[in-house]
Amino acid sequence: MFNFKVHRKDTSTKARVGRIMVHGIEIETPVFMPVGTYAAVKAVSPRELEELDAEIILSNAYHLYLRPGDKTIRNLGGIHKFTGWKRGFLTDSGGFQIFSLSSLRKISHEGISFSSHIDGSKHLLTPEAIIQIERNIGADIIMPLDICTDVPTEYDHVKEATKITIQWAMRSKVAWEKDQNNSTLFGIIQGNIYRDLREYCTKKITKIEFPGYAIGGLSVGEDKKSMYETIDFTTDHLHEDKPRYLMGVGGAKDILEAVVRGIDMFDSVLPTRNARNGTVFIPGGRLLLRNSENREEERPIEDGCTCYTCKNFSRAYLRHLFKTREILGYRLATIHNLHYLIEFVKKLRASIKSGSVDKFREELEKGLV
Amino acid sequence: MFNFKVHRKDTSTKARVGRIMVHGIEIETPVFMPVGTYAAVKAVSPRELEELDAEIILSNAYHLYLRPGDKTIRNLGGIHKFTGWKRGFLTDSGGFQIFSLSSLRKISHEGISFSSHIDGSKHLLTPEAIIQIERNIGADIIMPLDICTDVPTEYDHVKEATKITIQWAMRSKVAWEKDQNNSTLFGIIQGNIYRDLREYCTKKITKIEFPGYAIGGLSVGEDKKSMYETIDFTTDHLHEDKPRYLMGVGGAKDILEAVVRGIDMFDSVLPTRNARNGTVFIPGGRLLLRNSENREEERPIEDGCTCYTCKNFSRAYLRHLFKTREILGYRLATIHNLHYLIEFVKKLRASIKSGSVDKFREELEKGLV
Repeated sequence: MFNFKVHRKDTSTKARVGRIMVHGIEIETPVFMPVGTYAAVKAVSPRELEELDAEIILSNAYHLYLRPGDKTIRNLGGIHKFTGWKRGFLTDSGGFQIFSLSSLRKISHEGISFSSHIDGSKHLLTPEAIIQIERNIGADIIMPLDICTDVPTEYDHVKEATKITIQWAMRSKVAWEKDQNNSTLFGIIQGNIYRDLREYCTKKITKIEFPGYAIGGLSVGEDKKSMYETIDFTTDHLHEDKPRYLMGVGGAKDILEAVVRGIDMFDSVLPTRNARNGTVFIPGGRLLLRNSENREEERPIEDGCTCYTCKNFSRAYLRHLFKTREILGYRLATIHNLHYLIEFVKKLRASIKSGSVDKFREELEKGLV
Repeated sequence: MFNFKVHRKDTSTKARVGRIMVHGIEIETPVFMPVGTYAAVKAVSPRELEELDAEIILSNAYHLYLRPGDKTIRNLGGIHKFTGWKRGFLTDSGGFQIFSLSSLRKISHEGISFSSHIDGSKHLLTPEAIIQIERNIGADIIMPLDICTDVPTEYDHVKEATKITIQWAMRSKVAWEKDQNNSTLFGIIQGNIYRDLREYCTKKITKIEFPGYAIGGLSVGEDKKSMYETIDFTTDHLHEDKPRYLMGVGGAKDILEAVVRGIDMFDSVLPTRNARNGTVFIPGGRLLLRNSENREEERPIEDGCTCYTCKNFSRAYLRHLFKTREILGYRLATIHNLHYLIEFVKKLRASIKSGSVDKFREELEKGLV
């Protein structure tokens, strides 16, 4: 049901191009996964996502458990049928979101108890319960419950959290093996920015054996250097023939720096959230659509861009839509940002294939891509 | 530049099928015009409007004068280029909106002075200024400044307002004739529900001579009987060979009742505003998407409906999108409602052509369309 092949390895970096086959869905890596927390990528339709060449999108088990309920999705035939999105789905467990959003949360070895951020109702989610929830939802790739710590968090606390994460990974795998259905379970590596804990966790998680591995708990407040170093030494301890997913990372530069350190998969709310704030990606940086300099600017967001937005609308019109809070503005900016990032990853793949990653990196630094 | 032909008249009612040709754009009548107050039909894209077979959309000169400014639109090549919408545009003057939204508004024979509802800035809009604003915006059909009174408003007040509306219509025509550009100016008939004032206004306005006539000031609080009667005796006084536009009316039943009384054009925020509230049109009534009975409802909004929404999404998914306030929900409901109403008008046209308006009316009353 799940297969991953590396097709091409860069000679000067750890970058690689590969292909995931999961339940008949083919995903070229490196891949960027747009986020649709509530089973909808904010502001865009499945048809638009297909046109953008999105291959797999990410939803959140915690959120879907609360609304509309994982059993509701199961009763409606699973998340693909529910949403009309026929390509890949990955569900994160939502451990991170329980910590950010819910109140009265409490971790025990058993699981996480918390009050819903929607209606205050009380819940206990165990690793086994999360597997069952994700199975009901029916995504192609699912993530186990884990504990994500902030940076900075003191060593002893991270150590304890890492140990629990490993125990939960083991329990998740046991639960998953009982009935794999159409889901493929990845392992998650935690350990904050403590090198020995990352190494310890990587060894333990890989020993449990999963079809793919995620690096969690990065891009949560640490500096870029720590993030890149952590990615670098973690991928050194990961099997070459398994896909590696860096959770919650999504800027162009961070994606490139992670890919050259051996990462294959990414997700982030960055392109969609930025878009809804009127911030759009262009080579060399960002453009604030609300700025008055765009008042009568006839150019599109990006000259030569082939997205629906840039082919049809001026910055002036987009500024107007944002100033008047028209939904169409959020839509058009989202389309451009997703297009930008998905095309960026395509170009990055091409540069790996042609052995020109270094040149691509230079172009990015010069603001040319 | 502007041409209207009645192609078929119903024998048992005053319904007719016609065609407006305006600046190379062909519009079949009866026609429903979706409203895009700020030069964007809320939640949908120009591409989607084309797919929905929308032929002409309505924007508001008052709103566009304030944001982004009519001169900005002119500098950007006019509203078609600004928005990417290549089919028809009609701009209402916004007299009605100045009254609903702005503060310190004051009418004199000269025009309307008011404070902007956005930043409180002071403005005076005269009939001549509105013509200039609409010329800058560049819509195909434009409306003169008028005074719309509520129901009930006492007779003497309506009489005075009607007289000013007539004076303004005359001044608007003079201003428009100086430089017609690509715009076609319609006349507006006011007079509230007072029969003699409507008749008086109709005579005066038709004497000024316009390429088309609008009936304004209905659907503002009066009962249906008064509305239908007012339409009926007003169209009796209008030339057969000019299009008749009933402003601000947009429910299926009201459209049918107006068409059989000789109306050709309609606009309303009803389908788009209802959609954003989660209320969608179905034969026989309305469906509230948020209702719990839709929780696990696999059926689309309307069985057999060919809109993007109904072909791809269940009521359960739409309910979920509304419960989680996903923009996609507003979009999908808007697409369905516009599709419903545009298709309704198409069917109504077909029934006039085939001489079966009465049968169509019966079907509507039985909840079959």
